[in-house]
Amino acid sequence: MADNTADADRLVQALCLALDTKRVAVDLHLLRRLPAQLRNGSFRARCVMGRERGFWRLLDILDPNLSLTAAGLAVDLGTSRVALRLLDLNSNTVLGESAFNNPQIESGPDVLSRIHAAALPGGLKALNQAMVSALNRAISALCDQCDLPPKNIYLAAVAGNTTMTHLFMGLEPRWIIREPYIPAVNKPGSLRATDLGLSLNAAARVFIFPNIGSYFGGDLIAGILYSGLHRRQELSLLVDVGTNAEVVLGNRHWLIACAGAAGPALEGGVTRMGMMAAPGVIDRVSMDPDSAAFDVHTIGGLPPTGICGSGLIDLAAVLFLSGMIDIRGKFIPGACKNLLKEKKGLQHLVVVAAEQSAVDRDLEISQADLDSLIRSKAAMYTILETLSTTVGVSLSDIKTLYVAGTFGVLIDPDSAVAIGMMPDLPRSRFRTLGNSSLGGAARALKNPGALEEIDAIRDRITYLELNVNQEFMNRFSAAKFLPHTDRSRFPSVAIP
Amino acid sequence: MADNTADADRLVQALCLALDTKRVAVDLHLLRRLPAQLRNGSFRARCVMGRERGFWRLLDILDPNLSLTAAGLAVDLGTSRVALRLLDLNSNTVLGESAFNNPQIESGPDVLSRIHAAALPGGLKALNQAMVSALNRAISALCDQCDLPPKNIYLAAVAGNTTMTHLFMGLEPRWIIREPYIPAVNKPGSLRATDLGLSLNAAARVFIFPNIGSYFGGDLIAGILYSGLHRRQELSLLVDVGTNAEVVLGNRHWLIACAGAAGPALEGGVTRMGMMAAPGVIDRVSMDPDSAAFDVHTIGGLPPTGICGSGLIDLAAVLFLSGMIDIRGKFIPGACKNLLKEKKGLQHLVVVAAEQSAVDRDLEISQADLDSLIRSKAAMYTILETLSTTVGVSLSDIKTLYVAGTFGVLIDPDSAVAIGMMPDLPRSRFRTLGNSSLGGAARALKNPGALEEIDAIRDRITYLELNVNQEFMNRFSAAKFLPHTDRSRFPSVAIP
Repeated sequence: MADNTADADRLVQALCLALDTKRVAVDLHLLRRLPAQLRNGSFRARCVMGRERGFWRLLDILDPNLSLTAAGLAVDLGTSRVALRLLDLNSNTVLGESAFNNPQIESGPDVLSRIHAAALPGGLKALNQAMVSALNRAISALCDQCDLPPKNIYLAAVAGNTTMTHLFMGLEPRWIIREPYIPAVNKPGSLRATDLGLSLNAAARVFIFPNIGSYFGGDLIAGILYSGLHRRQELSLLVDVGTNAEVVLGNRHWLIACAGAAGPALEGGVTRMGMMAAPGVIDRVSMDPDSAAFDVHTIGGLPPTGICGSGLIDLAAVLFLSGMIDIRGKFIPGACKNLLKEKKGLQHLVVVAAEQSAVDRDLEISQADLDSLIRSKAAMYTILETLSTTVGVSLSDIKTLYVAGTFGVLIDPDSAVAIGMMPDLPRSRFRTLGNSSLGGAARALKNPGALEEIDAIRDRITYLELNVNQEFMNRFSAAKFLPHTDRSRFPSVAIP
Repeated sequence: MADNTADADRLVQALCLALDTKRVAVDLHLLRRLPAQLRNGSFRARCVMGRERGFWRLLDILDPNLSLTAAGLAVDLGTSRVALRLLDLNSNTVLGESAFNNPQIESGPDVLSRIHAAALPGGLKALNQAMVSALNRAISALCDQCDLPPKNIYLAAVAGNTTMTHLFMGLEPRWIIREPYIPAVNKPGSLRATDLGLSLNAAARVFIFPNIGSYFGGDLIAGILYSGLHRRQELSLLVDVGTNAEVVLGNRHWLIACAGAAGPALEGGVTRMGMMAAPGVIDRVSMDPDSAAFDVHTIGGLPPTGICGSGLIDLAAVLFLSGMIDIRGKFIPGACKNLLKEKKGLQHLVVVAAEQSAVDRDLEISQADLDSLIRSKAAMYTILETLSTTVGVSLSDIKTLYVAGTFGVLIDPDSAVAIGMMPDLPRSRFRTLGNSSLGGAARALKNPGALEEIDAIRDRITYLELNVNQEFMNRFSAAKFLPHTDRSRFPSVAIP
C-alpha cells in the first residue's frame, strides 16, 4: 500500500534484476493485459522474454501457476527445401521437426529463376505469399503433431540465402543478381511475426539471419554459428555443398569466406545432383573387390531409381581407382568393357542393369555427367586453394574440415579426396554437420547472447570476391585432373 | 558499380551522417519500397525521419523532387475537451487547429466516473473506441480543412492526464483511483499509430507524454516543457487551473510538484465553473465606479447566459473590494441592498437582471457558489503555501508565475490576488500560457531533442503527496478568509 510504482515499472524493475539487464521493452497489447494479470497472480507472474540486441522484450505474461510450453521455431529457408524445428525454449529440447519442398519451385528451381519470376507483375507478392502460406501450414501441422498451439511459439529464427530471406520478407530481390549485386538489406534483425504474416503468438518476434551482400547468405552465417569454428583457436574450414558451393576458412581471430556462384563451372553440376537425393536414389557406390561389380546403396534401401551427387562422387572415385576412367575423367573403353554403350554419339556407362533397377531400364551415367562433375569438383578445389592462398595458409594446416548441408552428410570423404574435390587431410579431420543452417537457427533461439554472437561473426567475415582471372583459370585447369595435376597433393590416393 | 553496399545500409549510412546519429531504424514496409525508390530517384531521396530515444526512425522515403508536407499532430487529450494542432514538420508552422468535446463525457463528466464506466463489461473498450473514433474523425476533418491527406501525418504527440492517456491506449485505469493509486504505465513512449487505431500514415509513430503516478499527468509535463521553467535559473511557479489544480515549482536545478486532487475542497469548485466557459458566458466582471453597477463581459460579446469561473473570481473580488461580502465571503445585506434575494433559504445575488440576460431570467450567484469558490481558492493557496514551505522558499521569491490552461487565460490576476487565490506578486510576473498541454505536445514534435528533455523533466520532478494533516488544515482554515487571515501577505489588496 505504500508503493505506488506503476505496474509496468514494477514488472520491468523485477525483470531487469532477474535478467541482469538495463532495458526491458513492453509492447502495448501486453500493457493492456498487465494490470489484471498482475493482480490475478497476486503480483507474481511468469514472463516469456525474448532477447533483442542489447535489451529484452516481454513477449507474454502468464499466470504463475500455469505450466506453459514456450516454444521457439527454427527455420532453414532452403531454395529447394524448407526445414522446421520446434523447440521448448525452457528446457531447450527439440519438440519436433518437419520439412517441405519450397513452393516457390513452381516459379523456378533456382535463385536466378525466382528473381526473374519476382520481376513479373505481382510476382514478388505471389512468391512471398507462397512461402508464408506454406510456412503457416507447416507450422500448424508441426504444432498439431507436437500437441502445441501455434500461439505458444514466441520466437522464430530464420536462416536462408539472401534471395530466400528477401522473398520471405517481401523485399525486392531484383538487384541481388545485377551488377554490382546489391541486396535490399544485410541485417533485417528482429521483426514482428504479424508484419511477416506468420501465424505465431501475436507478440512473436522473428529473427532473420543477416547476410553479407548478395552471395553470402544467412544460412551460412547460421552454419558458422552452429559449427563453432569462429570460437576455435585452431584453423577450420567449413564447406557447404548445397545449392551453391560456399566456403569459410578461419578461427576465433579471423574468418574469410567466398561463395561458389562466382565460379561458373559449379552452376548445375553438383547442385543438380544434390537435389536428386530421395528414397530409392543411389547415394553410395563401391566396387566388389572380387567380382569388380558395382555395389550400390540406395536411400531407404529401395530398388534403385537413379543416382545422386554423393553416389556420383563415389562412382567417379571407384571408376578412377579401378582404372575405368583416366585422369581426365574419360571412359577407358578397354577397362569398361561391355558396361559402356554409345547413345546419340555420347558414351554411357551402365551402373545398374535394367533388371536390378526399379525403373525397368539401365541406370547409367554419361561422359557428359562425368565432365560436369569434374568441372564442379575442380571449381570447388580451386575455390579452396584460392581462399587458403589468399590468407597464406596451406590446406594441410586445416585441423577440422566441416562439411555442411544435408547433401554433405552423404559425401564419403575418401571418394571426395580420391577425385580431388576435397583436400587430402587425415579423414579424422572431416566432420559432417547436417543441416547446419537449421542447427544455427535453433542455436540462435537457445542462446540469449546469440544475436551479438551472430553480429560478431558477420562483422568479422572478410568476403573474398572470386575474380575469374588468369590465375584462377590456371588453378582450375590444374584441378580438372583426377585427383589433380600435382599428384603430390594427394598422397593418400592410390593412383592406378 | 564498385560499391555493393546493401540499399538499407547505404541509406542508413547517409542518414547517420546527415543526422549525426549512430542508429537509424528502418521498418519492414519501408524496406519493401526501398530498392525501387532509391533507383527511381537515382540514389537520391527525401526521407521523413522521426526521433526516438537515442535513435532516429525512417518514416518514409520519397521522390527527391516531390514536394510533400510532412505533418505532425499535437493532441491535448482533455477530460472535457480534446484539442488538435496540425504542424508542418519542415517549416515548424501551424497548419490548423480544431477541438471537440471528449465523447467519453457520455460515460461521465470526470475522471472518476470514466474509470467506473470502464469497469463495466465492455466499458474500457467502448471508452477507448469512442476516443479513437472521435480523434480519427477530427483528424480527417482538420486535414480536409488544411487540404492535406491524413497519410501525410507521420508523427503525433499526445498529452493528457493519466486516466485519459490510459483510456486512449486501452489500458485498464481501474487502479489509478484505488489505493495506493497505481497506473498501468508511467512512460508509454512512442507507439505505432496503427496499434492505437489512429488513421495516420501507416508508419506514423505516436508519442505519449509520460505521467508521474496517477495524479501528475502527461498534460502537466507537456505544460512544463511548454513554459520552459525547467530551463530557467530563476524560480518559477506553474499553476494549472483546469479540471484539477496542479502546481509545479522550480527552476533548472529542481522541480517539485503536487496536484489538487489531494485537497478535497477543490473537487467541484473551480473545476465545474471552468467547464462552463462558452459563448455568451460572463468571463469578466467589473464595477462601474460611478454607478456601482456590475459591468459584465461575455465570451463573444453575446447577451449573457451564465457566469464561468473567471467571471466568478472577478465577481468575488468586486464584491469583496466594494464591501458587499465580508472577509468570510458572506453577503452583507446592507451593502447588497435590492440585489439580494432569498430562494429556498439561500441568499442569491442578481448579477444580470432578466431583461439584460439571454435566458429571460435573472443571472445570479448564491451564497453556496461563493462558499464553494472560497473553499477552492483556499485549497489552491494552501497547496502553493505547502509546496513553497516544503522546499523552504517564499512565494514572493517567485519570479514568474505561469497560469496554464485555457481557463487560466481568462483569469484576471488582480482578481485572483484580491481574493487570495494567487500570491500577491507584482502583476508583471504573471504570465498566461493558454493550452500549455497542446503547446508542449507541439513542442515535442518540433524539437528533435524533446524526448530526452521530457524524460529529464519527468525524472527531475519530486512529487509531493499532499497529506491533509493538521498543518494543512490550519493553513486551509487561514486561507478561507478574503484575501487571507494574514493580511500582510496581500499588501496590494485595498481591503475595505
